Amino acid sequence: MINIALLGAGRIGKMHAEIINAHPKARLQFVYDVNSNSSKQVSEENNSEVVSSAEEAINSEKVDALLIASATPTHTKFITMGAKAKKAIFCEKPIDLDIDKVNECMSNIKGIDTPLQIGFNRRFDNSHAKVQQARTNKEIGELEMIIISSRDPAPPGLDYLNAAGGFFRDTTIHDFDLSRFILGEDPIVQVSAFGDNLFDENVKKAEDFDTAMFILKSKKGVFIHINNSRRAVYGYDQRVEVFGSKGMVISNNQTPSSVESFTESSTSSKEPILNFFIERYVQAYKDQFNHFIECIVNNKKPSVTFEDGRNALIIANAAYESHKLKKTIDINYE
Amino acid sequence: MINIALLGAGRIGKMHAEIINAHPKARLQFVYDVNSNSSKQVSEENNSEVVSSAEEAINSEKVDALLIASATPTHTKFITMGAKAKKAIFCEKPIDLDIDKVNECMSNIKGIDTPLQIGFNRRFDNSHAKVQQARTNKEIGELEMIIISSRDPAPPGLDYLNAAGGFFRDTTIHDFDLSRFILGEDPIVQVSAFGDNLFDENVKKAEDFDTAMFILKSKKGVFIHINNSRRAVYGYDQRVEVFGSKGMVISNNQTPSSVESFTESSTSSKEPILNFFIERYVQAYKDQFNHFIECIVNNKKPSVTFEDGRNALIIANAAYESHKLKKTIDINYE
Amino acid sequence: MINIALLGAGRIGKMHAEIINAHPKARLQFVYDVNSNSSKQVSEENNSEVVSSAEEAINSEKVDALLIASATPTHTKFITMGAKAKKAIFCEKPIDLDIDKVNECMSNIKGIDTPLQIGFNRRFDNSHAKVQQARTNKEIGELEMIIISSRDPAPPGLDYLNAAGGFFRDTTIHDFDLSRFILGEDPIVQVSAFGDNLFDENVKKAEDFDTAMFILKSKKGVFIHINNSRRAVYGYDQRVEVFGSKGMVISNNQTPSSVESFTESSTSSKEPILNFFIERYVQAYKDQFNHFIECIVNNKKPSVTFEDGRNALIIANAAYESHKLKKTIDINYE
Amino acid sequence: MINIALLGAGRIGKMHAEIINAHPKARLQFVYDVNSNSSKQVSEENNSEVVSSAEEAINSEKVDALLIASATPTHTKFITMGAKAKKAIFCEKPIDLDIDKVNECMSNIKGIDTPLQIGFNRRFDNSHAKVQQARTNKEIGELEMIIISSRDPAPPGLDYLNAAGGFFRDTTIHDFDLSRFILGEDPIVQVSAFGDNLFDENVKKAEDFDTAMFILKSKKGVFIHINNSRRAVYGYDQRVEVFGSKGMVISNNQTPSSVESFTESSTSSKEPILNFFIERYVQAYKDQFNHFIECIVNNKKPSVTFEDGRNALIIANAAYESHKLKKTIDINYE
Repeated sequence: MINIALLGAGRIGKMHAEIINAHPKARLQFVYDVNSNSSKQVSEENNSEVVSSAEEAINSEKVDALLIASATPTHTKFITMGAKAKKAIFCEKPIDLDIDKVNECMSNIKGIDTPLQIGFNRRFDNSHAKVQQARTNKEIGELEMIIISSRDPAPPGLDYLNAAGGFFRDTTIHDFDLSRFILGEDPIVQVSAFGDNLFDENVKKAEDFDTAMFILKSKKGVFIHINNSRRAVYGYDQRVEVFGSKGMVISNNQTPSSVESFTESSTSSKEPILNFFIERYVQAYKDQFNHFIECIVNNKKPSVTFEDGRNALIIANAAYESHKLKKTIDINYE
Repeated sequence: MINIALLGAGRIGKMHAEIINAHPKARLQFVYDVNSNSSKQVSEENNSEVVSSAEEAINSEKVDALLIASATPTHTKFITMGAKAKKAIFCEKPIDLDIDKVNECMSNIKGIDTPLQIGFNRRFDNSHAKVQQARTNKEIGELEMIIISSRDPAPPGLDYLNAAGGFFRDTTIHDFDLSRFILGEDPIVQVSAFGDNLFDENVKKAEDFDTAMFILKSKKGVFIHINNSRRAVYGYDQRVEVFGSKGMVISNNQTPSSVESFTESSTSSKEPILNFFIERYVQAYKDQFNHFIECIVNNKKPSVTFEDGRNALIIANAAYESHKLKKTIDINYE
Repeated sequence: MINIALLGAGRIGKMHAEIINAHPKARLQFVYDVNSNSSKQVSEENNSEVVSSAEEAINSEKVDALLIASATPTHTKFITMGAKAKKAIFCEKPIDLDIDKVNECMSNIKGIDTPLQIGFNRRFDNSHAKVQQARTNKEIGELEMIIISSRDPAPPGLDYLNAAGGFFRDTTIHDFDLSRFILGEDPIVQVSAFGDNLFDENVKKAEDFDTAMFILKSKKGVFIHINNSRRAVYGYDQRVEVFGSKGMVISNNQTPSSVESFTESSTSSKEPILNFFIERYVQAYKDQFNHFIECIVNNKKPSVTFEDGRNALIIANAAYESHKLKKTIDINYE
Repeated sequence: MINIALLGAGRIGKMHAEIINAHPKARLQFVYDVNSNSSKQVSEENNSEVVSSAEEAINSEKVDALLIASATPTHTKFITMGAKAKKAIFCEKPIDLDIDKVNECMSNIKGIDTPLQIGFNRRFDNSHAKVQQARTNKEIGELEMIIISSRDPAPPGLDYLNAAGGFFRDTTIHDFDLSRFILGEDPIVQVSAFGDNLFDENVKKAEDFDTAMFILKSKKGVFIHINNSRRAVYGYDQRVEVFGSKGMVISNNQTPSSVESFTESSTSSKEPILNFFIERYVQAYKDQFNHFIECIVNNKKPSVTFEDGRNALIIANAAYESHKLKKTIDINYE
């Protein structure tokens, strides 16, 4: 049984707590949150203990692994502490919003050999993964284009916006990572980014974007298009398309059932697509955690690495530069 | 140029007049209708001449072919006259509602060798025809089941109902014929029919059915299910499914465009399917006429024969017997 | 915690064992099977104890509920014993193949008030349930037709066929029950059944059917069509359609992902539909067990009753009579 | 009857000749082509006369309108001559590849009031037009994004490539125009263009692109993404999506029938989408010609103007500049 300390008991932390205890080989040992009510509640609901500091959890002999779901600025600190304590580490994305902190963390944990996985859950989505396989197994021949439409159902509040680090680093980072996942060994080398505030007042106050489009290129010449919106009234719109010399594979949106309705006012209408990222990706969250546990048990390196987290951030930063300078930016990963 | 006399200038006659003149090798020569206003109007709109009797048109040397779209009870008389005048004949379905008249007509025209085609237009629908081909070319292996859902958008008025000869002979006859078309050489040998009046007052007054289901069997054992309704509020529902040892092919409903809508209240909603049989089958009506002209020009026997019209009626009659006796009826085509 | 004794540790029993232990409020206490190897294996894999007789398990004070997944002929005996021991009972379908045994069981347990649920899992399928709701909430207006296409991917072996009680009682019974579920208070009063052996040698040896079609009618006049095959090469085909005065709702087949492929040889091709009933209905099996536990905890009567199991069998028996006599049979539930 | 002179009798000219004569109010009077064999053949097939020079046709009193389908460099000359002769003019796209010639033509025909329509046929596609209507009638609320995937089935030969004026001016120009059509009064003000040669040797020799992506912005802030390829092995891929504050409408690809196949190797497979632009847009070509005739008959200004042709070319030119300079270009329409 892998005993796990959960750091951060907010919305996403709660979800992780349940996933941990539903796993036959994992157990939630400790919960820590800066807000002691949150940690108490999540701890009680999931048969575990509250600890009063992250350090206590990280350094406890009872703990085999950390699940870091705390506020983003705490991630690198907890990763470093966990790595030094030789714990296996699962850390939510992004590693940090500041590339300097990420680089510092990278050098701090250099040489420490413990499983470390970053929470790019979408890689574990069954349908997106099949799109990636269609490239790997050459079902579509040589990859030429990736097209990602990724739109949230509704904009977040001002508090979230002020803390999140901007649209490209908080939201598009998933799509940058998914593109990297599909590309495999072929790195993204160029980005052109376009963001705007078209409709949301809070987004305007936060000096952020609610709508964005991107074109990226890989070293081998693959074209990638991403489009994002903070408001798709019909639900959480998540589509990925790969196109190549021998065909195209699309990961379409999903409805909760296979029901289709025909009335005087609707033809072939389906159930609404899911509105909330946790519902849409619940199985992906479970499967990413399965992978983490499997890596611990079999002493394997997780497939989503610290470097993946760092590289996605570097692309996001280059995207901001592109937007500002109105030109295409060559990406430097060093 | 094939010169054609149109007998009957009602709703369906008008459609035929336009199809005739749009064909590069055909020309509407004469129009006859018991209602002289109708014949005058259709004639004027389509650059042709009115004649005052069917005989005049049928026996005119200017006429190569007849298109019979008059009231059903006149069909056998006009077929007989046309055959004796050596004209090519296209006759709308059904040949007649009375099998005795059909048999009499059959013996009257015996041995006369002129192209004679019955208007089972659905055989010429592109999608239904592909379903039939999937049987012929063994794409689905050995045929085991045919399933036809065929539902009108709205019930007709009482006058139509009183003249039409009943649901099975007027409406289901298309589905009996389509089943025969798919089966090819394998004859339908049994029918079990179930009709009821579930919702329409006029249908009740006419002592007819508004809803019906059928199970038929072919000599080789193929199962056929047909379901009919006089009211599908979402449009004219026309689906055909064939199932066999190697798979299934479905001819689905068609929408006028390839547009799909997503809003707060609809997901993947398509344009309404067409509501009117002439719109839905307009291309099939054209293609059936193309076939007729091609048979005249190349002196070939049309693929939809008098016998096809007769056999579909025999099945309809057996269906009424099945409904009445509440048992399965063996079909006798002699 | 509800402690459960599993009677029968075959293919379906194993699945139930896992579902029991994955439920937060249930625990597998005992496993019994006539084959002691099976009971040992399932017991070990699921942290429970083997018992050497069904009686021991049924009468143990440690046991709150029975899950009966043993051979069909043992069902009524175990139900009776369980009911007398005041245990909650979940019994796989069918109750028995012999209506006399079912009736005897019914009178034996009369007046004993313990939760008793029959395993018609398809009622708990999310999509089929929405079809039923479309009738209940009048989304489709007044129900006029139900159309069920239910086809297995491949025929079972001869041993299974010889024990299963015939196609109508083993397979179609699910579709009879699903029709009853959709109809609600409106009973099925007539059945016309058509079975044949079109392709399978084992089925022929077992004097059973591999293909069948049915038309049933409810008291209010609703038409029901069912078609069954033992071989759909494209997978386990499970579709349900309801049609009424205000529209149609269809529960379509489901693919494991939302991926669509376009190549030189395929257009809009989806992933194969699932091939195995346990995979297709895994969530329905879980949800039916959730319902059972909920009924125990809240002392409610399960929604799928002994009477439901009995009535479905009565319809199946009438269907055999219809097939034999080639006529429509009025159903007598007394 | 509108008498029409066809200038240019190549592949597209032939198609226009047939469309002209199939129109009830139009007649092909003259055919001119630099290749006298072509003009002779098209003339014979369509019951018209050959003329030995464009001038003769343009200035003939027998001619009411010109259909210009000749080589692109001749377009502006013929437009000018036709306008001065007061003929109605339909001219294939592009007006010219050289903006100076377009501007010169514009000033030459200034003040001449004769119907002049440019051949952006896609505006007349039923499904694309519904997408545009979804913006106009606010079905999708305020427009925020347009996404166009437009891919040819196979690359053209070297001769075509050398004459065509480059991917952006020959192919993407349709998508620039379609975007302008959807945007209505809101002009495109910025373009970022990315082209590459990923797979085709002829394209490389012609120093052209086989793959391209674009992001454009309108004055009101609407984001437009276009992606193009010269090779989609699954057919001529033509999709248009509009996204706004109240929803999304997509014009999907179209298959020639509504047939769906299920076999051991395919699930829900449809017929291949059409491979050839004339087949895909045949109805759009007819409807654009209907519009032209209607404008002549009713003395209306065609909806696709000379200015539309000029503006699309200006966007294409700016796209080349963007590609070259690797930056976003502000578009100047003066």
